[in-house]
Amino acid sequence: MQTHIIPPNQALAAALQQKIDRKTKPLGALGRLEALALQIGLVQQTLEPELRQPQIVIFAGDHGAARAGVSAYPQDVTWQMVENFLAGGAAINVFCRQMELGLSVVDAGVNHDFGKRDGLIDAKIAPGTANYLEQPAMTAEQRDAALQRGREIAHALADNGCNCVGFGEMGIGNTAAASLLTTCLIGAEHGADLYTVTGPGTGLDDTGLAHKRELLKQALRRGGWPTEPLQALSEYGGFEIAMMAGAMLGAAERRMLIVIDGFIVTSALLVAHALNPNLLPYCVFAHHSLEPGHRVQLSFLMSQPLVELDLRLGEGTGAALAWPLLQAAVNFLNHMASFESAGVDSAGGEHAVDEPSALR
Amino acid sequence: MQTHIIPPNQALAAALQQKIDRKTKPLGALGRLEALALQIGLVQQTLEPELRQPQIVIFAGDHGAARAGVSAYPQDVTWQMVENFLAGGAAINVFCRQMELGLSVVDAGVNHDFGKRDGLIDAKIAPGTANYLEQPAMTAEQRDAALQRGREIAHALADNGCNCVGFGEMGIGNTAAASLLTTCLIGAEHGADLYTVTGPGTGLDDTGLAHKRELLKQALRRGGWPTEPLQALSEYGGFEIAMMAGAMLGAAERRMLIVIDGFIVTSALLVAHALNPNLLPYCVFAHHSLEPGHRVQLSFLMSQPLVELDLRLGEGTGAALAWPLLQAAVNFLNHMASFESAGVDSAGGEHAVDEPSALR
Repeated sequence: MQTHIIPPNQALAAALQQKIDRKTKPLGALGRLEALALQIGLVQQTLEPELRQPQIVIFAGDHGAARAGVSAYPQDVTWQMVENFLAGGAAINVFCRQMELGLSVVDAGVNHDFGKRDGLIDAKIAPGTANYLEQPAMTAEQRDAALQRGREIAHALADNGCNCVGFGEMGIGNTAAASLLTTCLIGAEHGADLYTVTGPGTGLDDTGLAHKRELLKQALRRGGWPTEPLQALSEYGGFEIAMMAGAMLGAAERRMLIVIDGFIVTSALLVAHALNPNLLPYCVFAHHSLEPGHRVQLSFLMSQPLVELDLRLGEGTGAALAWPLLQAAVNFLNHMASFESAGVDSAGGEHAVDEPSALR
Repeated sequence: MQTHIIPPNQALAAALQQKIDRKTKPLGALGRLEALALQIGLVQQTLEPELRQPQIVIFAGDHGAARAGVSAYPQDVTWQMVENFLAGGAAINVFCRQMELGLSVVDAGVNHDFGKRDGLIDAKIAPGTANYLEQPAMTAEQRDAALQRGREIAHALADNGCNCVGFGEMGIGNTAAASLLTTCLIGAEHGADLYTVTGPGTGLDDTGLAHKRELLKQALRRGGWPTEPLQALSEYGGFEIAMMAGAMLGAAERRMLIVIDGFIVTSALLVAHALNPNLLPYCVFAHHSLEPGHRVQLSFLMSQPLVELDLRLGEGTGAALAWPLLQAAVNFLNHMASFESAGVDSAGGEHAVDEPSALR
């Protein structure tokens, strides 16, 4: 999939910074919100950015490797949670209502027939991936279809007036897929050895975690360590991960602000970033997940998330919880008084002296 | 001032934890929001807590030591910023509007005559404290009046139906006062030597910071290092700091949730905590300020703030920005589906097996 992403023109940076610096506050006193305001202004190429029709989109998919064990039980939780999203009872529903965010759910490849449902986008590539312990998770055709479908979903959001999208996911087995993608695309030489980037997911104990690592080693023995993003995606990816990668690229093509959630969403970003690194300036990293591989991903992408709340839920919950900070960055830029408009003396003004300011 | 604060009864903790654990998410997956939900439930002694009429209250006061230099300029910024608050143009106004928080401004001792103004509570003890380089900042009578007035303000909020209050402050010179209080009340033996807890405030350069430290050393040579909270407050405090300490105690008496902002607000909490440590379970620490002494205070109080955004603005901005997280904690507790109500299999359910859950 060829994508055409223009990195934000930096010419506006000086004017944005000046606007930020004239607000009635000490220079830099709003800390990371100031960097965020600058980024959003650049993404939108305006001194008066707006977050319009903000959306969380949850991509759901099943993983063949989740059936590697003995029971269909955990895989069922994928469709059960999709039902929970549609019924409004999940954490992400609660947070989207609170933050006044739209929420869409995409069936990228859940092993369940939902029929036609309000709020559910049917983009099912197949009822779950193949088991990567035995064969590649998806064919090249499936992978390309998932990427393209994701891109179309992002473009449709943009066409409907949305200019910022937060990514969420649901899929039993997808921390494992994310670990495999992370070790392949970042590499052990950058800290992404399989051991480090494989974590407890929903809460495995030590024995369970050791077993998960063993299974993933088996997968790598079969499929190798592809460093090429499309090949890695075919071997180990999920349909929800591939579709998110396509949607991120599509969102950046349309100059949307992209809000990155946790470990699994960031694994999709690793794929998208390898396909077109120009999308990175469009991304805001919402939170730092407790899943240990997330730290390695963030370090590789040289990105610092906004909040660290020890979340490990997925669904886009971190993106939703960080949303008020994005809105706050836009709001202070648009609505705070300047020193001039408020009649407040600024530190750089004519009255400035060393002595008293030493005591503020 | 005698205060009567009953620590939250812990008997409800098990039932609250069970309610949290039955929500449709892996155990503990909402991280710090879960601890917050538990705390708020205990503070309000209910399984269905509510944040009612949430308020930010900014306490403003001037500091005689701000005049120790050559110009009245920086002190003027105190009243100018109060005017900015009343006009709605400051950062805290923008954030309170966004978060739908009430905002009150208290003149605890600003060196300016505001007259009667909407949104301004006149609690002026005096037009600024005395210069602690020369004499105690306030008399025992002034200090006690400020504490008592703060307590009354908190009680009045509670009488009006507010059950959670965030603290903010404005006062040129008040990081210096906060540094002196912090070193006295925590002590160098707990890391609060004057050097460590004195920072750049609104953004001093190295020369300015060295000068500030020198002035504060002079103050300590004159007034000593009182470890008794009331004495420390008299020597170095500000009226806004004293009034915040009283208001915190009053808020805890009325079982309100208390949202702590940055370095200066936490210096008021050090005073309040020394007077009655029972208020601590009522406190939520909103953010980690860039002012270096804040880390020492938080460590002393064994508290971890919710967000770290490199803010150093005051006004209660950190408290306002963290507010959606408090609301999110309450909302997930009240509105998320349980495994039972949503028909989702739980990890502890009969279908649970080791193998597949290893791959989630």
